[in-house]
Amino acid sequence: MATVQSFKYALILISSIILNLFSANVFLRIRWEQSWTKMAATEAETVASISCSGHGRAFLDGLVVNGKPICECNACFAGPDCSDFLSDCVVDADSGDPTFLEPFWEQHAASSAIVMAGWHRMSYEFNDGSLISEELKTHIRRVHDIVGNAVTDGRFIIFGAGATQLLNAAVRAISPEGSSSPGKVVASTPYYPVYKEQTEFLNSKDYKFSGDTSLWKSSAIDSSSSQNFIEFVTSPNNPDGQLKKAVLRGPFVKTIHDLAYYWPHFTAIPAPADEDLTIFTLSKLTGHAGSRFGWAIIKDEAVYQRMLTYMSLSTYGVSRETQLRVLKLLKVVIEGKGREMYEFGYKTMKTRWDQLSKSVSLSKRFSIQDLEPHYCSFSGKVKKSSPAFAWLKCERQEDKHCYELLKAAHITGRDGSLFGAESRYVRLSMVRSQDNFDLLLQRIEKLVTE
Amino acid sequence: MATVQSFKYALILISSIILNLFSANVFLRIRWEQSWTKMAATEAETVASISCSGHGRAFLDGLVVNGKPICECNACFAGPDCSDFLSDCVVDADSGDPTFLEPFWEQHAASSAIVMAGWHRMSYEFNDGSLISEELKTHIRRVHDIVGNAVTDGRFIIFGAGATQLLNAAVRAISPEGSSSPGKVVASTPYYPVYKEQTEFLNSKDYKFSGDTSLWKSSAIDSSSSQNFIEFVTSPNNPDGQLKKAVLRGPFVKTIHDLAYYWPHFTAIPAPADEDLTIFTLSKLTGHAGSRFGWAIIKDEAVYQRMLTYMSLSTYGVSRETQLRVLKLLKVVIEGKGREMYEFGYKTMKTRWDQLSKSVSLSKRFSIQDLEPHYCSFSGKVKKSSPAFAWLKCERQEDKHCYELLKAAHITGRDGSLFGAESRYVRLSMVRSQDNFDLLLQRIEKLVTE
Repeated sequence: MATVQSFKYALILISSIILNLFSANVFLRIRWEQSWTKMAATEAETVASISCSGHGRAFLDGLVVNGKPICECNACFAGPDCSDFLSDCVVDADSGDPTFLEPFWEQHAASSAIVMAGWHRMSYEFNDGSLISEELKTHIRRVHDIVGNAVTDGRFIIFGAGATQLLNAAVRAISPEGSSSPGKVVASTPYYPVYKEQTEFLNSKDYKFSGDTSLWKSSAIDSSSSQNFIEFVTSPNNPDGQLKKAVLRGPFVKTIHDLAYYWPHFTAIPAPADEDLTIFTLSKLTGHAGSRFGWAIIKDEAVYQRMLTYMSLSTYGVSRETQLRVLKLLKVVIEGKGREMYEFGYKTMKTRWDQLSKSVSLSKRFSIQDLEPHYCSFSGKVKKSSPAFAWLKCERQEDKHCYELLKAAHITGRDGSLFGAESRYVRLSMVRSQDNFDLLLQRIEKLVTE
Repeated sequence: MATVQSFKYALILISSIILNLFSANVFLRIRWEQSWTKMAATEAETVASISCSGHGRAFLDGLVVNGKPICECNACFAGPDCSDFLSDCVVDADSGDPTFLEPFWEQHAASSAIVMAGWHRMSYEFNDGSLISEELKTHIRRVHDIVGNAVTDGRFIIFGAGATQLLNAAVRAISPEGSSSPGKVVASTPYYPVYKEQTEFLNSKDYKFSGDTSLWKSSAIDSSSSQNFIEFVTSPNNPDGQLKKAVLRGPFVKTIHDLAYYWPHFTAIPAPADEDLTIFTLSKLTGHAGSRFGWAIIKDEAVYQRMLTYMSLSTYGVSRETQLRVLKLLKVVIEGKGREMYEFGYKTMKTRWDQLSKSVSLSKRFSIQDLEPHYCSFSGKVKKSSPAFAWLKCERQEDKHCYELLKAAHITGRDGSLFGAESRYVRLSMVRSQDNFDLLLQRIEKLVTE
């Protein structure tokens, strides 16, 4: 009996030792898997676990109080964990900050994180001497192929610090050199204000901002005038979401297609863009505006080479940290059937547009732009509107300064005059956090019923 | 006896079970600590563990063959693990790629790694509305305070995509606006070629590259001519490592101090710089050239504001990925007594300079610049030379094209004419990998004995 007992004990003991050995093995394996990355991983997980009541977030590079990063609250929220609502605060509907996609990235935490070693890409150049990651370029082509919003076959691709840098690089690259009259940079009203501000600030000898496209229709056709034109075509348009085509035609006309919003969150995709020079930006694709990453797709090799020179002489290319991270983010975008992010984005933007439209339609005080449904080749159906911005018009005769009227109601929009339009218009951003949109809607509802 | 036996078994069993529970606990704790960061950590450690024989490296964003990243070999090495030496390859001593610091970062793997979440800093702006991390700014001030190479108290700090972007931002910010004659951008020969190339390519109405500073000494003093000057002062100078002071004096002279190499690896630090506008770059401090990160320290608020506008309109600030990583790198630089990296850097550069000097001195075919020892306030002693570049002169009457002569010997330098000097000079980079330097030395030794 005692022997049987002993045998039983021995059996349990052996099992226990085996289990111990197994545990030790797993433990050691984890330790091995996690050598130099451990400290960074712990740090990142600790910061991510700080609770900010869903109305803010702590960041690894945020302000530190008593050795710990603190919550950075969404606008209109305050307190150590962002749980205090500031009821009479100002809603910022000015910035096109696309944080509406933040929840998507929270849901894809594991697949979108990256670890960067201290020695990662210290060189100025990649191994092939370029400033551009080949892997990332391949992934950008794949993203376009899945969505069907741009032809990339046989085209050159260049990276820039957001569309912002690429806009000027493109203007610089296609403007005439040493011509007696500088190239005329034009855009259709209402246009994105940066076209004008950037061109004027940089004050080049070779190009000059020259206002609304429609003023130049006849001059462009007249080949004897030899005037050079650079037309910005923004589709969907910022601020009003309309799909646009080039307006000017003529021997001295070149176009830059700014397709920042030509993604399924914001518009139907009727067909792949097949233009001479198109510009896209990560901020409107994945929502990572802070990454400062954009790309241009270029037909002509000479233009591509000139843009490369621009990048080389202005910043010596795009940061390698950014290129690595963008590669990881695009891998998530492509994952599965490559539709999940667009579905999330479209659903969010469409819901917001429906809510705002409904609210505005309750009175005749305001109106917003009318957007036609279009057939979308990506979704395979006719798609309703889901624009990034509302192009709001103050309809009452006396409300000439719509921006001021909204400001008095604690809403900051962007004055129509900056877009070359009347001050009766204001652009309202709908791409920020849900907190931000909810409050905007609430304020608009109040104004409408006043 | 059997009872004693059973008791023993039971005791061992209980111990084993306790150990098991402990192991399970540790295991679970590690699992918990490592939730969403696990995949990224494994990926990074896997890539880091790929062996490239010490003559190359695999990267997370490198080319992928059969689903695995492959080795990217140092110049003159090849093969799947970079173990094949290509004996008649060309040594690249052109690029100022500071990979001599890579081994330092390998030694500090754990403290210099970062994990970036998918949702990290998606916004255009930081919470205070700026494009600049306050934490990072604080750390930059700390780095300068420790080294004693720049006064930062009461000064404004702005970030840019490397010195490259800041050079033009500074010129733009201090050039006269709407003046009938554009500001004259000048630098003392031999000067860093980018000053000229960048200014000419961007072709502004407001400033113009106007060559060697010494040509303008008398015009600058003459206040009646009202000519505006923007003088670049590079100290230590690129290419020759000399400590420099501003040359022009006069009512319309403004200076930009490019202090990229004013760090203890490359020079003695006689005193903290206390100039109107100084520019530094991460690439020469920590060796992370690919990060495209630099900063300027500015006295005048109006100039600072204008540089902010430049950054806003040209790239909308520096990528948040870069800012986070730079913060982490600077924390390592500051760690301990904040001397380790400089000691590593100085030792490497001084050894290289001694070796090259010795080799060149073996004949009269070549000469290199003479550098005076200076008292260094950081090390508290008189310090011998450790420059980043050799400013090589071909001494034989017939060797007018030194660049071509070296090229024939399979060395690529940078032609003196690009620096506004004679083609009898060539700049040779000594900041690249040890492989690269060893091969350069070998080739020079061969030339000297020819």
